[in-house]
Amino acid sequence: MPNAYQQLTHRFQRLSRFAHLGAIAGWDMQAMMPPKGAAARGEALAELRLLRHQLLTEPVVGDWIAEAKTLPLSSSEQANLHEITRQYTLATVLPGNLVEAQSLAGSRCEHAWRTLRASNDWASFEPLLKEVVSLAREEATLRAEATGVSRYDALLNLYEPGMNSAKLDTLFGSVKTWLPDLIQEIMARQARYPLVTPQGPFSTSLQRETGLDVMKVLGFDFEAGRLDISAHPFCGGVPDDVRITTRYSEDDLFSALFGVIHETGHARYEQNLPREWRGQPVAEARSMGIHESQSLFFEMQVGRHPLFLKQLRTLVLQHFPQQPALEEDNFIAWNHRVTPGLIRVDADEVTYPAHVILRYEIERALVEGNIEVGDIPDLWNEKMQASLGLSTQNNYRDGCMQDIHWTDGSFGYFPTYTLGAMYAAQFMATIRQKMDTDEIIHTGDLTPVFNWLNSNIWNKGSLLATDELVKQATGESLNPDHFRQHLITRYL
Amino acid sequence: MPNAYQQLTHRFQRLSRFAHLGAIAGWDMQAMMPPKGAAARGEALAELRLLRHQLLTEPVVGDWIAEAKTLPLSSSEQANLHEITRQYTLATVLPGNLVEAQSLAGSRCEHAWRTLRASNDWASFEPLLKEVVSLAREEATLRAEATGVSRYDALLNLYEPGMNSAKLDTLFGSVKTWLPDLIQEIMARQARYPLVTPQGPFSTSLQRETGLDVMKVLGFDFEAGRLDISAHPFCGGVPDDVRITTRYSEDDLFSALFGVIHETGHARYEQNLPREWRGQPVAEARSMGIHESQSLFFEMQVGRHPLFLKQLRTLVLQHFPQQPALEEDNFIAWNHRVTPGLIRVDADEVTYPAHVILRYEIERALVEGNIEVGDIPDLWNEKMQASLGLSTQNNYRDGCMQDIHWTDGSFGYFPTYTLGAMYAAQFMATIRQKMDTDEIIHTGDLTPVFNWLNSNIWNKGSLLATDELVKQATGESLNPDHFRQHLITRYL
Repeated sequence: MPNAYQQLTHRFQRLSRFAHLGAIAGWDMQAMMPPKGAAARGEALAELRLLRHQLLTEPVVGDWIAEAKTLPLSSSEQANLHEITRQYTLATVLPGNLVEAQSLAGSRCEHAWRTLRASNDWASFEPLLKEVVSLAREEATLRAEATGVSRYDALLNLYEPGMNSAKLDTLFGSVKTWLPDLIQEIMARQARYPLVTPQGPFSTSLQRETGLDVMKVLGFDFEAGRLDISAHPFCGGVPDDVRITTRYSEDDLFSALFGVIHETGHARYEQNLPREWRGQPVAEARSMGIHESQSLFFEMQVGRHPLFLKQLRTLVLQHFPQQPALEEDNFIAWNHRVTPGLIRVDADEVTYPAHVILRYEIERALVEGNIEVGDIPDLWNEKMQASLGLSTQNNYRDGCMQDIHWTDGSFGYFPTYTLGAMYAAQFMATIRQKMDTDEIIHTGDLTPVFNWLNSNIWNKGSLLATDELVKQATGESLNPDHFRQHLITRYL
Repeated sequence: MPNAYQQLTHRFQRLSRFAHLGAIAGWDMQAMMPPKGAAARGEALAELRLLRHQLLTEPVVGDWIAEAKTLPLSSSEQANLHEITRQYTLATVLPGNLVEAQSLAGSRCEHAWRTLRASNDWASFEPLLKEVVSLAREEATLRAEATGVSRYDALLNLYEPGMNSAKLDTLFGSVKTWLPDLIQEIMARQARYPLVTPQGPFSTSLQRETGLDVMKVLGFDFEAGRLDISAHPFCGGVPDDVRITTRYSEDDLFSALFGVIHETGHARYEQNLPREWRGQPVAEARSMGIHESQSLFFEMQVGRHPLFLKQLRTLVLQHFPQQPALEEDNFIAWNHRVTPGLIRVDADEVTYPAHVILRYEIERALVEGNIEVGDIPDLWNEKMQASLGLSTQNNYRDGCMQDIHWTDGSFGYFPTYTLGAMYAAQFMATIRQKMDTDEIIHTGDLTPVFNWLNSNIWNKGSLLATDELVKQATGESLNPDHFRQHLITRYL
């Protein structure tokens, strides 16, 4: 007779196998499925979600958890039990009718958003978003009651366990004191050197070849994953079979390429999660912020490092003919451009935090009930003016309607982007102390860097809490100075 | 409160949604998955099979069936209930430990077969096959007891419900009386006209383009399906999203092309199963024989029709340069070659039935206990000598070890290939009476032919028993004369 802990690991292994099927069918839906397959696929995935929810929230799981806590467990087993408990609690705290109402309101709002954004129609969008926010507040209240934290923090914890708005205020408050001046300084400096724009078209199939070459350099295991195309790039699949996607534009040589580098960071994290715990919650990625730290480590810390850009240029020139924009100085400078803009997903690494902090401040106030949906456009405009000197007056499309996140109620997610950038800078600062990173990047064999990430981050899965993970890896808690120092070193 | 019949349709809809995920993950495994994904995928699919088996065989399903039989149902609902009952009975009649033993022995035998066939090692293969046969006999006995038919017929019914060995003896007995002489006559005739062999290489990507063009001509709905590559070509996916595969050889222009035409026949059947019954057993394909009749209708009745070959040649010449072998007469004659050979999957439509009848006779005797595994090689050799004049003495690789079917215990499947060929010829004979088929094939717009197939076969799903389906479509039960007449007309 298996004990309660063994019952739990068995149950979570089953859940992981069903999640596997969902991950592959989900990837297929984005990357392979023809249009008429959509309805049946949606129903099949909904049926699977329902099954997984039932298996996860069955009362006996709660009994097993209570009993497992009394058993003698190794520290890894305890960590696993902690993650099991977390998943169980997150799944059981909401009543079914709220989940259903959220799913309906989210689908409605997201679906409408796709056309309303294009037509800049805030008036039609506002009531749909109001409904989503109202349900998100209900969710936040229930989660806050269950965990004893504030309403916003309860949502934040879905994506970044252990983080809270007090810490975010400190981290982001620091960034706000130096970022606007830094942007101005960098722009003034860059204005002195005019850039040559790359001239397309750049063939999609050659872009793909170049991307595959870079993935090889970055250690992607092609026996355990694939690169394909989808409208919205993502990293999916399962650790033994990671599916990353990109999208190509024949006008733009670099967008897909850095997208591939970014997703390769996510992929290597997944491919190297602790093998001996596969199928258990403790083998999953630590948090969204840590996940993003790996993609941004690859894209920003390594990918836009001047010595890496030199090698990237060599690769590019193996597939595309020389042109003035691909001369070395211009190649590097082009990929170091800093330009305040309205659109987050197009932002460079210097201005990106401004987009995130603005969203954090607004979504936090929204969830806590300090502002209403109707206040968003003016607040957005105000904050864009203050941080990047840009107006979004009457421009909802490129302002508060630009992101998909809020449409389905994903409040608390945005901060993880900038947390990821900060973690990435801190990891690189530590690596620089351990080895001659410039020389390693110069030689092109990044193995020592990846080995450090593997033993300190990837292979740790969720065995440690995030703060402990970062402290063990770098000797200190998250410290935003490393990110600032990185930006100064690279851009000034 | 839903009644028992509604409970059943709800349960089978859930089963169909889970089957959807299995179909896509199964397709992915063959067509997309990188090697290291295999273990986790195998576990995920096994978990899904277990779930589906549990949902299908739960005792309450039997209760619902008993109660539903007392309810007033429409004739379509009755047909659905009939198929539901059939699936439930097939799934419940075997004890779990037998199924598990079969799964283990089958995996072991199939896995070993992959290397033992290559090394022509019958001695090592024999004990593994013996184990599979012994368990298949157990299965056949249990199924025979449950259904009141003979042991072999009980297995045959898994693939071709309504068929039995008495009917097969008549059908195949007839073929045996005329086939050997017909083969000799055709060969003598063809020997008079020497053929020019097509000279490769034929680029894989151009072969793919040609295949896609033919699929368009044949009405494949690309909004509801895809063409990809796999080691073993198949038709998978779900009716709204049918995935067919092929494999390309640069030496061979026609193998992949006719493979694609064959799978397109399977695909159009699936794409046109009755939409209003989607998710219910009555909306599934009628039988393996009927399924094969559609692929062979496309590949043989249409695909190798001289007037279709002329158009195929035009398509081929849009992608590949002219060469002597592609002159019209040679193009047609090349695709009408009749050559007795050892390998079933390489056989032409004239010699193919000889391969099937041989296997039928051996597997039937094997399941009924009239011969033992050790008798197979000699019997095989004897029958190959008698039907095609070829020896397989000591050549197990190209003799009784050539097929995968028996290795995992799929006894009763082989006859469906030749049943399919016979049904296809009978359908074409009926269509010829209704419309000027040659003229239709000549014009290239096959819509009237497809419309006939759609209303008489595809859109009928499993609403009728096979014999009734064929009678309503053609006015008579399966009659092998149409197949004979087809071969005579085409080849003499």
